[in-house]
Amino acid sequence: MSKDSPSRSRLAAFRAELKKRKLTGFLVPRQDEFQGEYVAAYAERLRWLTGFSGSWGLAIVTLKKAAIFVDGRYTIQLREQVDTKLFTPQHLAEEPPAQWIAKTLRKGDRLGFDPWLVTAEQARRFREACESAGAAFVPVEPNPIDAIWRDQPARPSAKLAVQPTQFAGRSAAEKIKDIRKGLGGHDAVVLTQPDAVAWLFNLRGFDVPFTPVVPAYAVLPAKGRAEIFVAPEKITEEVKLHLRSVAVTRAPREIGASLRALGKAKASVLIDPAWAPQRIGDTLARAGARVVAAPDPIALPKARKNAVEREGARNAQRRDGVAMSRFLCWLEAEAPKGGLTELAVSEKLKSFREATGALRDLSFETIPASGPHAASPHYHATPASNRKLATGEMFLIDSGGQYVDGTTDITRTVIVGEPTSEMKDRFTRVLKGMIGLSTIRFPKGTCGSQLDVLARQHLWNAGFDFDHGTGHGVGSYLSVHEGPARINKSDRTPLEPGMILSNEPGYYRQGAYGIRIENLLMVHEAKPVEGGDRPMLGFETLTLCPIDRRLIDVPLLAEAERRWLNTYHARVLKEVGASLAGEELAWLEAACAAL
Amino acid sequence: MSKDSPSRSRLAAFRAELKKRKLTGFLVPRQDEFQGEYVAAYAERLRWLTGFSGSWGLAIVTLKKAAIFVDGRYTIQLREQVDTKLFTPQHLAEEPPAQWIAKTLRKGDRLGFDPWLVTAEQARRFREACESAGAAFVPVEPNPIDAIWRDQPARPSAKLAVQPTQFAGRSAAEKIKDIRKGLGGHDAVVLTQPDAVAWLFNLRGFDVPFTPVVPAYAVLPAKGRAEIFVAPEKITEEVKLHLRSVAVTRAPREIGASLRALGKAKASVLIDPAWAPQRIGDTLARAGARVVAAPDPIALPKARKNAVEREGARNAQRRDGVAMSRFLCWLEAEAPKGGLTELAVSEKLKSFREATGALRDLSFETIPASGPHAASPHYHATPASNRKLATGEMFLIDSGGQYVDGTTDITRTVIVGEPTSEMKDRFTRVLKGMIGLSTIRFPKGTCGSQLDVLARQHLWNAGFDFDHGTGHGVGSYLSVHEGPARINKSDRTPLEPGMILSNEPGYYRQGAYGIRIENLLMVHEAKPVEGGDRPMLGFETLTLCPIDRRLIDVPLLAEAERRWLNTYHARVLKEVGASLAGEELAWLEAACAAL
Repeated sequence: MSKDSPSRSRLAAFRAELKKRKLTGFLVPRQDEFQGEYVAAYAERLRWLTGFSGSWGLAIVTLKKAAIFVDGRYTIQLREQVDTKLFTPQHLAEEPPAQWIAKTLRKGDRLGFDPWLVTAEQARRFREACESAGAAFVPVEPNPIDAIWRDQPARPSAKLAVQPTQFAGRSAAEKIKDIRKGLGGHDAVVLTQPDAVAWLFNLRGFDVPFTPVVPAYAVLPAKGRAEIFVAPEKITEEVKLHLRSVAVTRAPREIGASLRALGKAKASVLIDPAWAPQRIGDTLARAGARVVAAPDPIALPKARKNAVEREGARNAQRRDGVAMSRFLCWLEAEAPKGGLTELAVSEKLKSFREATGALRDLSFETIPASGPHAASPHYHATPASNRKLATGEMFLIDSGGQYVDGTTDITRTVIVGEPTSEMKDRFTRVLKGMIGLSTIRFPKGTCGSQLDVLARQHLWNAGFDFDHGTGHGVGSYLSVHEGPARINKSDRTPLEPGMILSNEPGYYRQGAYGIRIENLLMVHEAKPVEGGDRPMLGFETLTLCPIDRRLIDVPLLAEAERRWLNTYHARVLKEVGASLAGEELAWLEAACAAL
Repeated sequence: MSKDSPSRSRLAAFRAELKKRKLTGFLVPRQDEFQGEYVAAYAERLRWLTGFSGSWGLAIVTLKKAAIFVDGRYTIQLREQVDTKLFTPQHLAEEPPAQWIAKTLRKGDRLGFDPWLVTAEQARRFREACESAGAAFVPVEPNPIDAIWRDQPARPSAKLAVQPTQFAGRSAAEKIKDIRKGLGGHDAVVLTQPDAVAWLFNLRGFDVPFTPVVPAYAVLPAKGRAEIFVAPEKITEEVKLHLRSVAVTRAPREIGASLRALGKAKASVLIDPAWAPQRIGDTLARAGARVVAAPDPIALPKARKNAVEREGARNAQRRDGVAMSRFLCWLEAEAPKGGLTELAVSEKLKSFREATGALRDLSFETIPASGPHAASPHYHATPASNRKLATGEMFLIDSGGQYVDGTTDITRTVIVGEPTSEMKDRFTRVLKGMIGLSTIRFPKGTCGSQLDVLARQHLWNAGFDFDHGTGHGVGSYLSVHEGPARINKSDRTPLEPGMILSNEPGYYRQGAYGIRIENLLMVHEAKPVEGGDRPMLGFETLTLCPIDRRLIDVPLLAEAERRWLNTYHARVLKEVGASLAGEELAWLEAACAAL
């Protein structure tokens, strides 16, 4: 992308605004007030100011300096999008923002921040950094960017939808009853994460792409009706009726009054400082409430899918597997003819998902990566980068759908033409890892960081690794990246029955190709083994779609791995094949033949 | 063991002593002032009061109640040794002492503790518990047990020995220089762990069995000579000469004056609150020092064995492997004849170790466990429990030696007569885990909790697990249980080249038998694999001793596992066989024959 030429004048206007407000600097995070992965257009303040469009970034602008912090995923994109004469690029891990603040600010400086966009935990860290430099960290409202951004888009006003109990499994009233049991005698909890609000009240929203969350805060008291702070124009008659017995809705600006009322009542209120805006805890504390830091109480119940959500996940994955299988059949026929581009292939896949008649949205922007593009795990195809698929190359496609009964996420890597023996070796090592994780049984209390090695060991033993997590949680018609459990080198959340996690090891050779194979798994209580002396958990594989047999170096598979693959393919043929016919069914039969 | 009948009168005398000191209660931990696993006889205060002899325990005695807290290992032993009418048994995890304190104490109560026996971190936790009950947590000196314990043994007065640079690899002066570089501008560090003091000054001590540590505190200033607080009668001329340029020795009681001098100088002093007595930080802070909490700076350098220590470890393990192999040869001939007891076998093994001419001590009390006794991983054989080995049963023996060049720890499980197919299945699963961990390569930064599953997966997949860690660090002619790295379900210390760790998965069937196979491993930089794109660490197996082939279900081994075992046995035959002859060599050849 070209450099965003308006940055110079915008930065000048911004600094003038800061002076007017007697500030020496200001924080501009990419996050909006909900800390999510996707933000609506009105909240793209970082992009407006700097040109940077990545999903995580932070600019710190002082009257004399400006820096922009991104992580390793975005160092290249940053240089393409941002005028680095105006904004000095900083690597998030190498020079963390707090360190930069401590080093750059001078005594008496006043660094401003929007207390709705910065979490309580971040604010504490930044405040300490300011204080170590003798500077002040000052909450500022309204946001000074909004004051100078003339054509700032309006807030989106998509109507909310009710998620029927038929798919949610439990009514909002039942969920609220359960959550209240966990409040431990405190008077209320403030919910600030839009997927928590969506889950608890069985609502879905459509303000941001891919993620049907409800952009709203809510206060759930130990007794009485909850309050949801959401723009009135989003509320339909159906939603109003649905919420009647469990919650009242109020305009977003009314949250201040509600928090102050809790303070006045000397209430003991739970907030999650890792996610809650600094402003919320601050308002509560100033008004006299006792603010208690606690992890979001919705996170675990939301992650542990109930029986209805589990069945929904199976149905959604089967449906999605039909679309993916039809797509792969089409791709295998068309790709060798030449001329297919990444974006065209991506559109074609979308059309197969739409043909299910049940697609609500994609679950994220499809990653269609041809040849060397796949060596970047987070590659995004654009008209400028759009590459053709070529014979003798691998093609990686990472995609997913939002269905009312479940969220999907699947990656397949296929060969166009003939693979090299190196490609087969690497693909097989990735596959062995994926199988190792899929088949493990483990005792209660085991967490993702204990299992992660199972997906990596065959790469490690050959001197390779992949620089991303092995798996992330997945929501139920909610966010495709859902906490709290993950499978990676450090996560310590115990895995529990009903959690859905991706299993996506990979191998990336810069300038050459990339491989990733991704299935979704669901934690379940494993069938006891004859003679075993303790209960074990295990994974049910949800994703149903063939894995490219042409890329497998069969002798590298252990006997049990080969057996797993053949059993998996037999199941794919049975469950997906039931919806296919003719050429597509014939293709699936061949793709699922035993090895 | 029988109940310790004097407990009743001792408890009464103790309560009288508490009243005299205006206390309503007192903490009696098993630890001495060095927090080690072994304590000298004078410091066995918990045992004297309660009868309990386990390696970890805590009694809390109030004027009306008395409780004793132990962990899962010791619940049975506790009931055998302690009069539970006097001391209510408590499970450490289910009702932690702090919780018991908060529940039991009343407003105005004064719970005393010996500030030399309780760490800063423990003191903080107990103080909070007392305060939540409105009680006070009061440091008390001297220890009231000592006041009433008439025949309390004297402190041991074993002379210290110099550990020559020939085995330590680096002089005390060089080590001190390195540690000073890591002080980060602080003025001094107080070392309170006896293995840290032993390592830093290249000294060894002999006050407690099995563990040649130096029971002394030391102060290492950023400049000038260190101070070691140690009883003068322990200092030989050789030690004096050895320390001349690096440290002065002072009597233990002089530490107070040194800490106060640091305070007077407003020094910034590092202590490790997880290990340092509460009294040390408290004295420093009261005197005006800035007390900075930091992990013991000796722990990592001590764990990362240098080239000389690595070579010493190889020599010690080879030597120990000769003793173990001779022992197993003897056992295989003698056991089937009947009549051998656990204690006799244990003595016989010791005689083989002594026959090396290099044994300084055992590295812990040998665990010789016959048949069902092996189902308790921490079984201790006593004249009362002493069981005979029997045909058709397995025999587990966990043991180790202290040599001047290294510390060993090895477990072998053998069959007397013929194993059942169940025994072979379990033994082979344990072995597969041990091999999986032995052969893994892993990137820098990987920690033990990420690798632990490799030792467990074949058990987990069959519905089994073992309830202890997979591996602990091992010192170099120091403690056989050495921090900071471990291989277990939770340890987060990155593994680094030169660390020695045990690899000891097991399987335990209550009332029937137990299996454990233990080798020591040393972390090294793995030889790069052809084609690999990043450096990897790996393990060098140090322990050299056959693994009972009669217990292996060969078809259960993967081809690579069988290859590893054959290669390992060939190496054992070469390295250990070089020191054997005649029948013993013939036995070793058969025990190491390829499968």
